[in-house]
Amino acid sequence: MSEGRSEGPVAAQHTLPHVVIVGAGFGGLQAARALKHTPVRVTLVDRTNHHLFQPLLYQVATSVLSPNDIAAPTRHLLRGQKNLTVAMAEVSRIDTAQREVQGSERRLRYDYLVLATGAQGSYFGHDEWAEFAPSLKNIAGALVLRDRILKAFEFAEIQEDPSQHRDLLTFVLVGGGPTGVEMAGALASMTRATLRSEFRRIDPASARIILVDAGPRILATYAESLSRKTHAKLTRMGVEIRTGARVEHVDADGVVVSGERIPSRCVFWTAGVHASPAGVWLGAETDHAGRVKVGPDLTVPGHPEIFVVGDTACIEEHGKPLPGLAQVAMQSGHYAGRSIAQRVTGRPALPPFKYLDKGNMATVSPWFAVMESGRVKLSGFPAKVLWAFLHVLYLSGFENRLMVLLSWIWSALTNQSGARLIEDSSYEALRSARVRETATAGKARGVA
Amino acid sequence: MSEGRSEGPVAAQHTLPHVVIVGAGFGGLQAARALKHTPVRVTLVDRTNHHLFQPLLYQVATSVLSPNDIAAPTRHLLRGQKNLTVAMAEVSRIDTAQREVQGSERRLRYDYLVLATGAQGSYFGHDEWAEFAPSLKNIAGALVLRDRILKAFEFAEIQEDPSQHRDLLTFVLVGGGPTGVEMAGALASMTRATLRSEFRRIDPASARIILVDAGPRILATYAESLSRKTHAKLTRMGVEIRTGARVEHVDADGVVVSGERIPSRCVFWTAGVHASPAGVWLGAETDHAGRVKVGPDLTVPGHPEIFVVGDTACIEEHGKPLPGLAQVAMQSGHYAGRSIAQRVTGRPALPPFKYLDKGNMATVSPWFAVMESGRVKLSGFPAKVLWAFLHVLYLSGFENRLMVLLSWIWSALTNQSGARLIEDSSYEALRSARVRETATAGKARGVA
Repeated sequence: MSEGRSEGPVAAQHTLPHVVIVGAGFGGLQAARALKHTPVRVTLVDRTNHHLFQPLLYQVATSVLSPNDIAAPTRHLLRGQKNLTVAMAEVSRIDTAQREVQGSERRLRYDYLVLATGAQGSYFGHDEWAEFAPSLKNIAGALVLRDRILKAFEFAEIQEDPSQHRDLLTFVLVGGGPTGVEMAGALASMTRATLRSEFRRIDPASARIILVDAGPRILATYAESLSRKTHAKLTRMGVEIRTGARVEHVDADGVVVSGERIPSRCVFWTAGVHASPAGVWLGAETDHAGRVKVGPDLTVPGHPEIFVVGDTACIEEHGKPLPGLAQVAMQSGHYAGRSIAQRVTGRPALPPFKYLDKGNMATVSPWFAVMESGRVKLSGFPAKVLWAFLHVLYLSGFENRLMVLLSWIWSALTNQSGARLIEDSSYEALRSARVRETATAGKARGVA
Repeated sequence: MSEGRSEGPVAAQHTLPHVVIVGAGFGGLQAARALKHTPVRVTLVDRTNHHLFQPLLYQVATSVLSPNDIAAPTRHLLRGQKNLTVAMAEVSRIDTAQREVQGSERRLRYDYLVLATGAQGSYFGHDEWAEFAPSLKNIAGALVLRDRILKAFEFAEIQEDPSQHRDLLTFVLVGGGPTGVEMAGALASMTRATLRSEFRRIDPASARIILVDAGPRILATYAESLSRKTHAKLTRMGVEIRTGARVEHVDADGVVVSGERIPSRCVFWTAGVHASPAGVWLGAETDHAGRVKVGPDLTVPGHPEIFVVGDTACIEEHGKPLPGLAQVAMQSGHYAGRSIAQRVTGRPALPPFKYLDKGNMATVSPWFAVMESGRVKLSGFPAKVLWAFLHVLYLSGFENRLMVLLSWIWSALTNQSGARLIEDSSYEALRSARVRETATAGKARGVA
């Protein structure tokens, strides 16, 4: 059946240009919204049904928030945009000659294409580490982390051998960027406060949290003073920070960091990302992180009808690629949408894309954050208040943002977290070969 | 290693009797709480980390509530009970001669044992139907239902062939008890109100919701007047009710009901339950539903140290077994705990267990419920208010019960639901052989 027929009775619409947007993250959503009043048909394709507020994903992994606090159905967010159809489908291929996107159940012919498909964890050529050191990119991944963290404590509580307690309660975070720092802070709060008095045979506060970074300091992209304050704060919270330390190996039993083996059942990866395969789909030139090299108008060289935005794009400014931040994705997505609107309506082309850096912020504890914007630098409680305010503000369209704010306030005041749920009750992921061996030996000895 | 050593320095405790409770549902939790001030050691074993408020599980399946609204960590709920240890472990075997429970990592020797392990869906000898018609017994199961329901709409939206829309948007609920009725009502609200204006190619309100029951009326255990009112209300909401209808077959393409095939991708089972394998573990006498026959003191004949409570027990009163209700589980669990306390402290045995029926209630829509208690019968909005009040009251220990109440009020006022999240983005479960065939044929024809 042709796509034409599928659109039903509104035949007049078919003279309208068709804009296909792939990816409903920050970039795709902004591109879609920028086309709201433009005479086009928009199809927004994503393999999930939700827009994810990714900067708070670590709070799902650490049981502070529940998945649906930060994931809202894309079609709900965009229900008022009458020129737009949402399709939950997986894109497998793009035919740039025929101008077709191959989705799960049908092909979509496009006049304009916006690729905003994001990025995944990158293991610097060691993809085999992914199994043992998951990274944090979507809800399913965050729930894997949450399960492992919560199970580590549960499994330790039912073990007999104290040496296993130590391995189970050692958390290693690879990567000292904002996500690693925020995870480390959240884990410290959890083990030192939230879980206190809930276990009888282990002391959750004895858990080791090790933050590893290959560079000379954590939060390398922030001002040095903020990096130093964050380092001091995390250390006071009981986090061991190892800078200038290389991860040389990861397996089921732990990591090897600069020659030293650290036994651990919970290693998490926040060290780097690799762009989604948009570059492969297009056969376009990419940089070392797989990002598609785009021109100053965010289109692919030779394809003025194809825009690539956000983490999938290598957008150069002053000779350097822009970082993989929500702000970059939002601004570039918005630019792509507006650009298409200009062209469709015959108005002059926009000036080249220019990123407006509004600043950076990272939260460390329920009462402490750091932020910088231009020359302004803030740390501690004032930064935390601003952090919370801005994040809730940006959770726009999420009707439960009030709930999120209440959850934070309640967490900060009571040291409790609201979403400590293990969905899958198998301990399999925590049982390395060595643990299994010991358990079997124990049984053979007739343990009672 | 012996269990003795594992308890660490508190050696004096070892003279105390050890009570092992298996299952942290309503029965197990009440048994544990009843022992709070008794000089015993209590170990509460459950294969999950949470106590689940099962009566609201259908609201997770229908995206009204989020899993952690109705599931709180068991060890958090009981953190103040110093004589109690929570163990997340799977029980595989019970040795009644040695008085040992075999858990995931170790054996537990008991002086008293309380089995409160609940029940699962029963398919009347057709276990092969379970795959196509999942039932609703735990969080993981509720998320499977939620995924299927939400995906049915997403998958229909990206299909071309309207005949497939019909099959995908036909929901069949097998069983007209409270769970079937509540699911039907929630699905009607969802399709008629919540999803309206969010789809472009399908009309969610065109979804068929079919409630099938073999008996002469729905809510068979309720007063006939309430059953009639519920029938009328559901019919007005667009639910097709088929009473006196037998389900003869279930497969990937739908169900056969009294000789008629109803094509459907979403069949859910609420028709009956079978007790967990406690009876098998004990080698005890069970009834047709696998429930262990217990005496009037809730112990297993010949084993005065073993109590069986809740859905796992066949507790007879006036020659009839008590129904599988939360109230029965709570009261029998509490009784078992108190009974043990009496014996341990050398006080006289309790009189035989007597169930106090406080009444029944079921909710049909955001504004309509039915309830009966003794001779009092209520329906409509007043019953709904009472329903909400009592459920929130019983969500005791859940710090987020205020959030649950806010979610309900907000849902009722806006027709929105807060937890419409698809965690696993594969459409595999919805693709029957027939659908796959058609899709392949479509591709072969070069659909664009």
